[in-house]
Amino acid sequence: MKAARIEYRYKVEPADSDKVRKIAESSGFFNPEEIDIAAELVDDRISKGEKSGYFFIFAEMNGRTVGYACFGPISGTQCSFDLYWIAVDQDLRGQRIGKELLKKSEEAIHAMNGRRIYVETSSRNQYAPTRAFYINNAYRLEATLKDFYAPGDSKNIYVKGI
Amino acid sequence: MKAARIEYRYKVEPADSDKVRKIAESSGFFNPEEIDIAAELVDDRISKGEKSGYFFIFAEMNGRTVGYACFGPISGTQCSFDLYWIAVDQDLRGQRIGKELLKKSEEAIHAMNGRRIYVETSSRNQYAPTRAFYINNAYRLEATLKDFYAPGDSKNIYVKGI
Repeated sequence: MKAARIEYRYKVEPADSDKVRKIAESSGFFNPEEIDIAAELVDDRISKGEKSGYFFIFAEMNGRTVGYACFGPISGTQCSFDLYWIAVDQDLRGQRIGKELLKKSEEAIHAMNGRRIYVETSSRNQYAPTRAFYINNAYRLEATLKDFYAPGDSKNIYVKGI
Repeated sequence: MKAARIEYRYKVEPADSDKVRKIAESSGFFNPEEIDIAAELVDDRISKGEKSGYFFIFAEMNGRTVGYACFGPISGTQCSFDLYWIAVDQDLRGQRIGKELLKKSEEAIHAMNGRRIYVETSSRNQYAPTRAFYINNAYRLEATLKDFYAPGDSKNIYVKGI
């Protein structure tokens, strides 16, 4: 199979709010409340600019936006960043687009003087691929908050020094 | 010494933004950026109401606001709350006002169906009294994120089930 030709875009546009919503829905990993939040982060970025604290990288194939990453500095910290979201359209999984989005996010964070990247995921079985993704990309499980999301649904906090 | 007669107020008023700023400054535990955030949370509550996700309890003595607590549900969780701030005027420390604010916050959180309360503090020596305060009130250190705030300045996450 020929690898997809992907281009990466760093500029955020108003239409990205809907695009992000569709990608997050398609990925199957997010609930409706989370999808609303994903779109709100784009709106916040559009209205406030970089002051919003949200930065985006979009993956595009033949003009179609097929994945994105969202990250930003953690206020009150010197050089810690949160990686809020990485999502790729369901029909394009397995093509290393997520891995490339992660790599480009890490480069962008490093350029903004970020030195530690934090990612939070649920302990539920549904998120086993998410956890494997971060472990495979050299993120380390630093803490688990038991029953954080709900009874039986803990929060795992991963970190990577860059 | 006669114990101070303290009354507790749950309603948030526009003037609380300045009051919160003064209390946070007086306590000596917060930097200017944190004090700005403390005041912004009040403004957010005033403009958005309970939808802001920020709830407050104010401690008042003879009509003067001398301390406050701020907490709220953690979005995406079923019954977890963050306790964002507890601060008491420097000249009124040692009178158990903080302890009483904490107790009333826990009661209010429980009434809102909260069952876990999270508190985050810095590992720096300056915050030893803060950490002792939570430990003395049955909070348990659940996780430490090393160098989270800055090199040598870790984040401690405490939790209490209620």
